[in-house]
Amino acid sequence: MSYGLAIMLDQGMVFAADTRTNAGVDSVSMFPKMFAFHADEERLVVILTAGNLATTQSVIGILEENARRAMQKSLFSMRSMFEVAELVGSTLREVYARDSQAKEPSETGFSGSFIVGGQICGEQSRLFHVYPAGNFIEATTETPYFQIGETKYGKPIMERCVKADMSLKRAAKLALVSFDSTIRSNISVAPPIDLLLYRHGDFRPALRRRIADGDEYFGDLRQFWGLGLQSLFVEFPDPSWAMEGEDDATAAGGAEVHPLPSET
Amino acid sequence: MSYGLAIMLDQGMVFAADTRTNAGVDSVSMFPKMFAFHADEERLVVILTAGNLATTQSVIGILEENARRAMQKSLFSMRSMFEVAELVGSTLREVYARDSQAKEPSETGFSGSFIVGGQICGEQSRLFHVYPAGNFIEATTETPYFQIGETKYGKPIMERCVKADMSLKRAAKLALVSFDSTIRSNISVAPPIDLLLYRHGDFRPALRRRIADGDEYFGDLRQFWGLGLQSLFVEFPDPSWAMEGEDDATAAGGAEVHPLPSET
Repeated sequence: MSYGLAIMLDQGMVFAADTRTNAGVDSVSMFPKMFAFHADEERLVVILTAGNLATTQSVIGILEENARRAMQKSLFSMRSMFEVAELVGSTLREVYARDSQAKEPSETGFSGSFIVGGQICGEQSRLFHVYPAGNFIEATTETPYFQIGETKYGKPIMERCVKADMSLKRAAKLALVSFDSTIRSNISVAPPIDLLLYRHGDFRPALRRRIADGDEYFGDLRQFWGLGLQSLFVEFPDPSWAMEGEDDATAAGGAEVHPLPSET
Repeated sequence: MSYGLAIMLDQGMVFAADTRTNAGVDSVSMFPKMFAFHADEERLVVILTAGNLATTQSVIGILEENARRAMQKSLFSMRSMFEVAELVGSTLREVYARDSQAKEPSETGFSGSFIVGGQICGEQSRLFHVYPAGNFIEATTETPYFQIGETKYGKPIMERCVKADMSLKRAAKLALVSFDSTIRSNISVAPPIDLLLYRHGDFRPALRRRIADGDEYFGDLRQFWGLGLQSLFVEFPDPSWAMEGEDDATAAGGAEVHPLPSET
């Protein structure tokens, strides 16, 4: 499993991805799942991957090859981020078509999904979620972030705290909190975490950073957050419900209690 | 989807379950998913259900019928909670066997899972998780809680705050925080939430309570928790990483950036 996250902000975009890949708990490895392509003053395209590593690496590999050979249909020839998302989707379908001819089909499935974001000169920054079918959706002001992979553990904090007018660094902090919740709950997601911050109109990353296990800021944040949640939890008063036999408890409803059959 | 949660504490046990059932977003209904069977001074058995409602209602229905008829193999004749867990598992397999003969198999599957906890005179309180296959595991001091259904959103806060020496009411508060995170993130989980608190050795519930949408304590808790998390998040300093072009950023590694092919 993987966890990838991208946030669209007023000032720019923040991308984060973990680097753990596993095929069963006895085969855990490190692979980058964030890929950035940029041409100074012209375009930046960031792709996060989740799912079957053979599929996602093939997709990225084909995209890289075609970009390097300056093919007609490459990440550097697309005229809009919409076309870039289409290209990622069609490349994904191409890889499926190739791999599904295998005589011994994979037990785990070939499924892969992507977050594709960036900016091409002449249009605004845009952010897409490319589904395993190769189709895709775009982030809007109502839903300014996308997650792929192991998304659920880290979603509640996103829902509570994400705001489009955050600074890039604050949004990076939010991404790290979301990763912390995920890492604590799921052994298949782990640091290092790759971070990329982008400021609209720059056409190059404002910051790239790999957050390793011993990273001081991330370590402090994790400790602060854990202790902070615990004291927040203790701070709110426990319920003052009347227990057992008191009128309040009896009137409160709840589960049906069935008496012993011999009692009825 | 459903969410069910049970916590084993030094003082007793806390059970919580939501009441929403859905078959697609156009068919959302309310069904209780917590069932309690008790015989004064002799036993209390609490069952939480998640999964296919036809399956779980059949299992509970058969258990209820057999208990009412004082059958030889009923929840009231089992001599230990281990036997109770076995009975729930075998009843589940019975229901599968019946339903899988259907000529038009269900598209959504018949899968169901259960949390089974309680105490029978002569032994300690025990807590089990019965899987869809009818097999089961028991909670230990290392893992003192079980979740079923839509478990992921509410897991991080459990991992951070659960402690066996909590009071029953504090653990009920924790359960409500865990439900709050789940409810915010997943439309298929919703109040009312059924709560049952049990004190070891009582052989009857210490408290049963249905937490409805307008519940004052739950409302205050949700507001406090949301605002508290937001201020906690703001309180921790944003990262002071150097952005764009500064030495620190360049040295930090992170994603590979591929230049335009024409540039190389």
